[in-house]
Amino acid sequence: MSGKEPVGDFGLIGLAVMGQNLILNAADHGFTVVAFNRTVAKVDRFLNDEAKGKSIVGAHSIEEFVQMLKKPRRMMMLVMAGKPVDDFIETLLGAGIEEGDIIIDGGNSHFPDTNRRTHYLKQKGIRFVGTGVSGGEEGARYGPSIMPGGNEEAWPYVKDVLQSISAKSDGEACCQWVGDDGAGHYVKMVHNGIEYGDMQLISEAYDMMKRGLKMSDKEMGDVFSQWNKGVLDSFLIEITRDILYFNDDDGTPVVEKILDSAGQKGTGKWTAINALDMGQPVTLIGEAVFARCLSSLKGERTRASQKLHGPEPHFTGDKAEFIKNLEQALYASKIISYAQGFMLMQNAAKEYGWKLQKPEIALMWRGGCIIRSVFLKDITKAYRENPDLENLLFNDFFNKAIHDAQAGWRDIVAKGAQWGIPTPAFSTALSFFDGLRTKDLPANMLQAQRDYFGAHTFRIKPEYASEKYPEGKDIHVNWTGRGGNVSASTYTA
Amino acid sequence: MSGKEPVGDFGLIGLAVMGQNLILNAADHGFTVVAFNRTVAKVDRFLNDEAKGKSIVGAHSIEEFVQMLKKPRRMMMLVMAGKPVDDFIETLLGAGIEEGDIIIDGGNSHFPDTNRRTHYLKQKGIRFVGTGVSGGEEGARYGPSIMPGGNEEAWPYVKDVLQSISAKSDGEACCQWVGDDGAGHYVKMVHNGIEYGDMQLISEAYDMMKRGLKMSDKEMGDVFSQWNKGVLDSFLIEITRDILYFNDDDGTPVVEKILDSAGQKGTGKWTAINALDMGQPVTLIGEAVFARCLSSLKGERTRASQKLHGPEPHFTGDKAEFIKNLEQALYASKIISYAQGFMLMQNAAKEYGWKLQKPEIALMWRGGCIIRSVFLKDITKAYRENPDLENLLFNDFFNKAIHDAQAGWRDIVAKGAQWGIPTPAFSTALSFFDGLRTKDLPANMLQAQRDYFGAHTFRIKPEYASEKYPEGKDIHVNWTGRGGNVSASTYTA
Repeated sequence: MSGKEPVGDFGLIGLAVMGQNLILNAADHGFTVVAFNRTVAKVDRFLNDEAKGKSIVGAHSIEEFVQMLKKPRRMMMLVMAGKPVDDFIETLLGAGIEEGDIIIDGGNSHFPDTNRRTHYLKQKGIRFVGTGVSGGEEGARYGPSIMPGGNEEAWPYVKDVLQSISAKSDGEACCQWVGDDGAGHYVKMVHNGIEYGDMQLISEAYDMMKRGLKMSDKEMGDVFSQWNKGVLDSFLIEITRDILYFNDDDGTPVVEKILDSAGQKGTGKWTAINALDMGQPVTLIGEAVFARCLSSLKGERTRASQKLHGPEPHFTGDKAEFIKNLEQALYASKIISYAQGFMLMQNAAKEYGWKLQKPEIALMWRGGCIIRSVFLKDITKAYRENPDLENLLFNDFFNKAIHDAQAGWRDIVAKGAQWGIPTPAFSTALSFFDGLRTKDLPANMLQAQRDYFGAHTFRIKPEYASEKYPEGKDIHVNWTGRGGNVSASTYTA
Repeated sequence: MSGKEPVGDFGLIGLAVMGQNLILNAADHGFTVVAFNRTVAKVDRFLNDEAKGKSIVGAHSIEEFVQMLKKPRRMMMLVMAGKPVDDFIETLLGAGIEEGDIIIDGGNSHFPDTNRRTHYLKQKGIRFVGTGVSGGEEGARYGPSIMPGGNEEAWPYVKDVLQSISAKSDGEACCQWVGDDGAGHYVKMVHNGIEYGDMQLISEAYDMMKRGLKMSDKEMGDVFSQWNKGVLDSFLIEITRDILYFNDDDGTPVVEKILDSAGQKGTGKWTAINALDMGQPVTLIGEAVFARCLSSLKGERTRASQKLHGPEPHFTGDKAEFIKNLEQALYASKIISYAQGFMLMQNAAKEYGWKLQKPEIALMWRGGCIIRSVFLKDITKAYRENPDLENLLFNDFFNKAIHDAQAGWRDIVAKGAQWGIPTPAFSTALSFFDGLRTKDLPANMLQAQRDYFGAHTFRIKPEYASEKYPEGKDIHVNWTGRGGNVSASTYTA
């Protein structure tokens, strides 16, 4: 086959594990895919191995890659986020792509970069799509969750291929147009943040059973197996079961030999930073990221374990009931985490002017991706019933669910505190729940303090408004009897 | 007095409350101060009012301001952080300042801006100092904590005036050279983050007494008064007592009428973001910032309070013992917060190449500033005994203190969970303590999951290293029996 004929329906740059699997996936769905990689030897290796006998052709230069694609060209990059993406964009611009062509960035780019690239390429007549892709190796091969945003003009041209290769949930593609500019990568970022949270919650449950109840990995595997048949039914619970059952050659579980120092590539951190920037209390993801940070301080923790002592957990009582409570704690905390994630996205939509469709985001996460679960079916339903739902906890189903789970959840958090087993995510979820449902928080004290020492002023509760303290006005009180009545407009102490 | 004669020892731009008070403070210490403000009418008002009869002169233009200062000129700005600082720098550069002159930015600038300004002005022969100033109105007037960093060449010229006007602790000035570039503003940022934490902890204690024990403001004021005589003795505890005692004309406490919607000007947020960026688990400040975010959602909380229900606290038991436990919870959580803050600064020093002196930072915070306390005397002592102390909790005094406080602290966190009163800061501090002292955290599970779904690899615990699983190597396991052995180098799922 000549490399110069435009035979390709779809092009893909970057032959690491995700790239290779997406190509195989697209080929399975009848598309002729052109594969390219900077290290060209990798292209031939792929063609002679996994790609053999499939509708996959290789390009040996970027110019060849461009020539081999039908117009408008649909070119997806799966390269490392950051500079490599910009570099490939420039390379493509210099390799003969034409007005109307479409570049798709399927990597984990930070959404402000996608905003920038969409605008930059629009000026050149090129339609840019930044899309989140989640599902790991297996997802990429057999159907990932795909979250595209960018230049909406591109959508009619890429919809068929992206929806074909994506996961399906009850017949619906887990790939819908998310919104303008960086909206797709934004939603993928929040997805990853939630993934951090889900994983942290599972780790806390595992720790409570292992150190609190002194259960074996096999017993814990049985519990996760059981949980996977109930409200927690999800990919992450399923693989946790598999991991707990997975033994080494010596018959002992591999997971217990793995160093407890968690890595991270930054998307969870981005979510937490974005939440802080927007003033949204996305505490569970924040704690999940910090928990990974603490885990990575293995040396300091090992030294600390010699110097800092705590109680020894002594479990007495009904083990089955405890495990039921633990399931409730995990479920309730998870509801809180998703409620926080949707609060964040709701705010982002307002802040950045995106039309994010909450039911469709839930649908996209329903299948294919790492956080896929039965749970997300309930969320999809909640937002389909009421797309303007202010808070997930106000939906009848989740409202009942969290109330039902409440007692067990409180018991687990209290036990963790008494036993000396850290539950940062369970605890912060509970504090958030209790804070959210509190009409009068103690922040009145904060405001009094700020006015006392820095003349930062405060407002009055409407029910106490008076002529002296009118509603909606910035009020300063001379608390000490000394000092002035000048309020601080320019200075924060 | 003619406006053109160089009579001034020290110049100050910006006559809001902090600026005015710093001028009066410097004049009290024998310096002749030149005052300037963009709105010139404010200068005359100040001269004719508070400044009357003191060694304070006014400038009516920026050129006059420059001319009225002795060389090398020492010019401090107390203007809004951000663009106004850059604008005044440019204005000064155009108004006849000369090589060797010194510009001091005493506002709450973000440290990367101070890095940039120090370098920019160095190229022009101007010495720049970015300094944190804390202490609110009263501190500025009678002795604040001052944290200067920037171009160290300036230090010999500004030391006398800054140390004169600063607070003193046991005869030592709460003003020491912090480090290069933005180091001073960095330390001030962390100070403010810790201040957010301290205030949140006090609010949680207040909430537990108010809603858990149904105590009156007078009774709670008595408790804070008592606490102010013990290990918690500090400015913030003192003003909390005053606030609880402060009644309105109708004889009821003003604080109960204040809207529970906390403001923030960003320095706490910057600290949390910096912690995330550096991968340091500064969880308490993170939760304190998020607690302010949640408090500001007053409307949503009010609606949620109608839909989300929890337990009613019913206190039984010994009230005095409970209050003792609460004091322990506050004290222990505070120790954790400062340990986290010093971890962060320690890491920043490494990351940014600063020589931060931990004993001197503690000394600077000992007096004058909002977080001033007896507690910081103990921290100063700990770091003077061992400037290389890895973690504050490894110091004998704090080690004993946190172990003594532990039981009461756990009881409060458990009670908060059972009563439905949110304690995000108490809880996260306890989870951090329990996490730090745990040699084997459940992050092994996270790593197994990441390798399972994304081929992210893991490392082996040294005690389980083998030929198959060598220590220090990135290992990938084919968990499913399906899929490849390609590990992900470029992609995060």
